[in-house]
Amino acid sequence: MSSQVDRSRRGFLRTVGGAAATIAAGARASAQAPQAGAGARVNGLVAPPLDVVRWGLVGLGERGAMHLEALLRIEGCEVTALCDPWAPALGQAVATLAKAGRRPAAAFGDGQRDYLRLLDRPDVDAVILSTPWEQHVEQAVATMRAGKHVFIEVPAAVTLDECWQLVDTAEATRRHCMMLENVCYGRDELMVLNMCRQGLFGDLTHAEASYIHDLRFQAKQIEWGTGSWRLAHYERRDGNVYPTHGLGPVAQFLDVNRGDAFGTLVSMSSPSLGLAQYAAREFPPDHPRNRARYRCGDMNTSLVKTARGRTIMVQHDVSTPRPYSRHNHVQGTRGAFAGFPSRIAVEGRTDVHKWDTDMAKWYADFDHPLWQRVGEVAQKVGGHGGMDFVMLWRLVQCLRKGLPLDQDVYDAAAWSAIAPLSELSVARGGSVVDVPDFTRGGWRTFTPLGIVS
Amino acid sequence: MSSQVDRSRRGFLRTVGGAAATIAAGARASAQAPQAGAGARVNGLVAPPLDVVRWGLVGLGERGAMHLEALLRIEGCEVTALCDPWAPALGQAVATLAKAGRRPAAAFGDGQRDYLRLLDRPDVDAVILSTPWEQHVEQAVATMRAGKHVFIEVPAAVTLDECWQLVDTAEATRRHCMMLENVCYGRDELMVLNMCRQGLFGDLTHAEASYIHDLRFQAKQIEWGTGSWRLAHYERRDGNVYPTHGLGPVAQFLDVNRGDAFGTLVSMSSPSLGLAQYAAREFPPDHPRNRARYRCGDMNTSLVKTARGRTIMVQHDVSTPRPYSRHNHVQGTRGAFAGFPSRIAVEGRTDVHKWDTDMAKWYADFDHPLWQRVGEVAQKVGGHGGMDFVMLWRLVQCLRKGLPLDQDVYDAAAWSAIAPLSELSVARGGSVVDVPDFTRGGWRTFTPLGIVS
Repeated sequence: MSSQVDRSRRGFLRTVGGAAATIAAGARASAQAPQAGAGARVNGLVAPPLDVVRWGLVGLGERGAMHLEALLRIEGCEVTALCDPWAPALGQAVATLAKAGRRPAAAFGDGQRDYLRLLDRPDVDAVILSTPWEQHVEQAVATMRAGKHVFIEVPAAVTLDECWQLVDTAEATRRHCMMLENVCYGRDELMVLNMCRQGLFGDLTHAEASYIHDLRFQAKQIEWGTGSWRLAHYERRDGNVYPTHGLGPVAQFLDVNRGDAFGTLVSMSSPSLGLAQYAAREFPPDHPRNRARYRCGDMNTSLVKTARGRTIMVQHDVSTPRPYSRHNHVQGTRGAFAGFPSRIAVEGRTDVHKWDTDMAKWYADFDHPLWQRVGEVAQKVGGHGGMDFVMLWRLVQCLRKGLPLDQDVYDAAAWSAIAPLSELSVARGGSVVDVPDFTRGGWRTFTPLGIVS
Repeated sequence: MSSQVDRSRRGFLRTVGGAAATIAAGARASAQAPQAGAGARVNGLVAPPLDVVRWGLVGLGERGAMHLEALLRIEGCEVTALCDPWAPALGQAVATLAKAGRRPAAAFGDGQRDYLRLLDRPDVDAVILSTPWEQHVEQAVATMRAGKHVFIEVPAAVTLDECWQLVDTAEATRRHCMMLENVCYGRDELMVLNMCRQGLFGDLTHAEASYIHDLRFQAKQIEWGTGSWRLAHYERRDGNVYPTHGLGPVAQFLDVNRGDAFGTLVSMSSPSLGLAQYAAREFPPDHPRNRARYRCGDMNTSLVKTARGRTIMVQHDVSTPRPYSRHNHVQGTRGAFAGFPSRIAVEGRTDVHKWDTDMAKWYADFDHPLWQRVGEVAQKVGGHGGMDFVMLWRLVQCLRKGLPLDQDVYDAAAWSAIAPLSELSVARGGSVVDVPDFTRGGWRTFTPLGIVS
C-alpha cells in the first residue's frame, strides 16, 4: 500500500444503509483542508479505498480473538497476519482461521518484538493492536511508520507523552490511528448521538461517564488473561486508569474535538481497599496478590470542564462489588438521557419528572441509521451486545470506501489522556490540571462527526 | 428556661420505641466531656429535659406551615408564638391553631425584625426558623442569645462566616443549634445508616449526594413563595447553593464530624442556561425574570475528600428538565446502596452484578428502630413521605428526655459550608479549597451518632 494519501478522494460520498442513512463524514470533513506535508492535521483524513482490507492482528488474547471472529464475518476482509508471543493464543487464532476455511495467515510468535516482522509484510494494510496497555503506543508508532493504518484497543495510550507520540506520528505518516472505542457503536449510544444532533435535549450542559465494573476476579488471572498485566497498573497508578468506554460516547455527544474541547480536569480517588481485601480472602497470605500493595483508589471521580464551559463527570471503579455502569448520561436545557438502565426525559415529549425507560418507542424515532443497517446481524454475532461488530463493520466500510473514520487520533489522545491527567490531579490533592489540546486549536474549526447524517 | 445546661443529665439513657430501639446517643456522647465555660465544644450537648416543649415558629410559608401542622400532632408540644411579616401566612397559622382547638399563640407580624419580640417571650423554649436562607444566621444567633434552642431550615447558613457564627454562638450559649435536615429521617436513609453501622457494606470508601430537582416553576413565584427570594441566589451565586438534603445522610453514613471530616473540595459548574431559556419561554421579554442574568450553572458537581481519604460527589441542579434525585449513594468494600430508585448490592447476600430493588425484604432486616416506632404515623401525616414528622418527633423526644440531638451545630456548619466552598472553587476554576474544621479537631474523638443503637 502506498504511504501517500490520495487527497482526490476527500469529499467522497456514499450512501449506505437505509434511505436516510447518508454517512456524510467525507463531505463534512472536506471543509477543513489539511495542511500539506508531514505534521499537517489529520482531522477528516481519508485514505485510498481498499477493495479488500488485509488485516494483521497483534495480540490474540480475549479481545484479539473476538476481533478475529468478527472480521471473518465482514465482507471485504482478509486476515493475513497473526501475532502473539503466547503460543496457545496464536495457535487458537490459526485454528480459527482454518476452521473458517480461510487461507492461513503468516504467524509471528517469537517474543514480544516479533510484531515488527508482521509490520514488514506488504500484504498487511491495517493492524489491530489488542495488547497490554503499556505496549500500545510503541507498537502503534511502528505500525504507522510501516505505512499501515492502526487500530488500537482502549486506552490507546497510558502517558501524556504517549498521547503526543500518537498524534505526531499520525500527522507525520498520515495513517489512520483510531482507538477501538467500541462503546461509541452501542445501539443506545448511537441513538443518543442522533438525538443530540437533532437538538432533542436542547443546549447540552453536562454529561457523565464511568467505567464501573467489578473486575476483582481478574486477580485470579496470574499467568494469562487481562489480570496478568492489568493489576500491575493498580499497583503503580492512582486515578482513572480506564476512562474511555464511558467517556468516548459522551465526548461525541458534546462534539469534543469538533467544536468543543476538554479544558481542565480535577480528580479525587477514594482509598484503595477492595483488591487488598479480595486478595486477603481469596489467596494464601504469601501469594503475590497479597504481597502486592495496591495504590489505585477503588473509586476515582474526575471532573472535566470543556472549553465551552460544559462539565463532564467521569468515574472509574473496578474493585467494588456493585453492578456495572458506564453512566452514559447527557443533559441539556430540554431534557436528559441516562444509562444503566437507559432512560429518557424530554420536555414536550415525556413527563420530565419521571424517567421513560421504554426504549422501543425511542428506537422507532431515533435509532441510528448505522444500527438499522447492521444492528440485527451485529446482535447475532454478539460481542457486547453487537457494538463490537458494528464498530468493525463501520471501519471496514470507511476503509473500503475511502471515508474518514468516526474516531481519529485526536480522540484517541484526548480520551486516553484523561487517565494520566487524573493521576496527576490525584497526586496533587485534586488540583486543576490543563488537558493538552492535541488538535493544536483545530477543535475550533473541525466540523462535527459525519456519522450522523 | 435557664440558660445553664444541667450537666448532670449527660449520660441520661432512655429506651424509646420497640424492644431493639435503645437510642443511646446520651450514653455515647458522655465519652466526650465538654470543656468548661463558654466556647467549650457542644458535641453531645444535652439540655435539661422539658416536660412540654413550647415552640416559637418564625417564618410561616410553605415549610413553616408544615412544621406547625406536624407539631400539633406530636405529644408534649405547645406552639406559643408565631411570626411572619406576611399577613396571609401569619393569619393562616393562627387559623390552623384555632382549628386544632389549641390555645392562641402570640402573633408577631410587624416587619422583618418582629421576630426579636418573639425571642423576648419567656414561654418559648425552642424556635424553628423557616425563613429565607439569608436570614437564618442572624435570627439563629439572636435566638440562642435569647437562651432558646434553635432549629433552622436548610441550609443553615449561606457564607463561611455565618457557619462560624453558628458554631461560636452555640458554644458560647450552650443552646441546641440544629439544622432541620429532614432527609436524614427518611426511611431508606435511616435503614442505610443502620446497615453502615452494622458493616454491611464493608469499609466505606465513597458516597454520592445530590439535589436534582427541576424547580424552574419557582420563577413564577414573584411576590410570594420560595421563588420570590430563592431565584436571587441564582443571580448572584455560582455553585452548589443547596447541598444538604443529599449530603446530610451520606455525611452521617461516613461518620463525618464523628471519626472523619470533610477535608478538601473541588467544584465545577456547567453553563447557566436553563432558567434564562425557561424565562424566555414563559414570560414577556421585559419581565423581571427576563431582565435577570442568571449565574448559577445548571449543574454543579463538587468532590469532597475526607480526612480519612474517602470521597463524596455532590451535585446540584434545579434548572434542568429531568427527574428528581438525591443520589443517596454509599459504597464500601462489600457492597453498595444507591437511591432513586433505592437499590442494593451486598456481597454474600445478593448477586452483586445486579441491583436488588426489592426494599421490603431489606426493611424486614434493617428498618431503623426510629422508623419502626413512628414511621406508620409519619406516613399518614405525610411531609416528604413521613421524614418531616419523624424528624420533629425525634427532636421533641430528645428535648423532652434530655438527649443529645442527632445533628449538632458542627453538622449544620459543615454541611452548609459546602455551598460557599463550592462557589469559591468554581470562581477559582475548580481549585482545591480547604473545608474549615468547625469541630476544631474534635471530629477525631467525637463518638459516632447515637441514633443507631
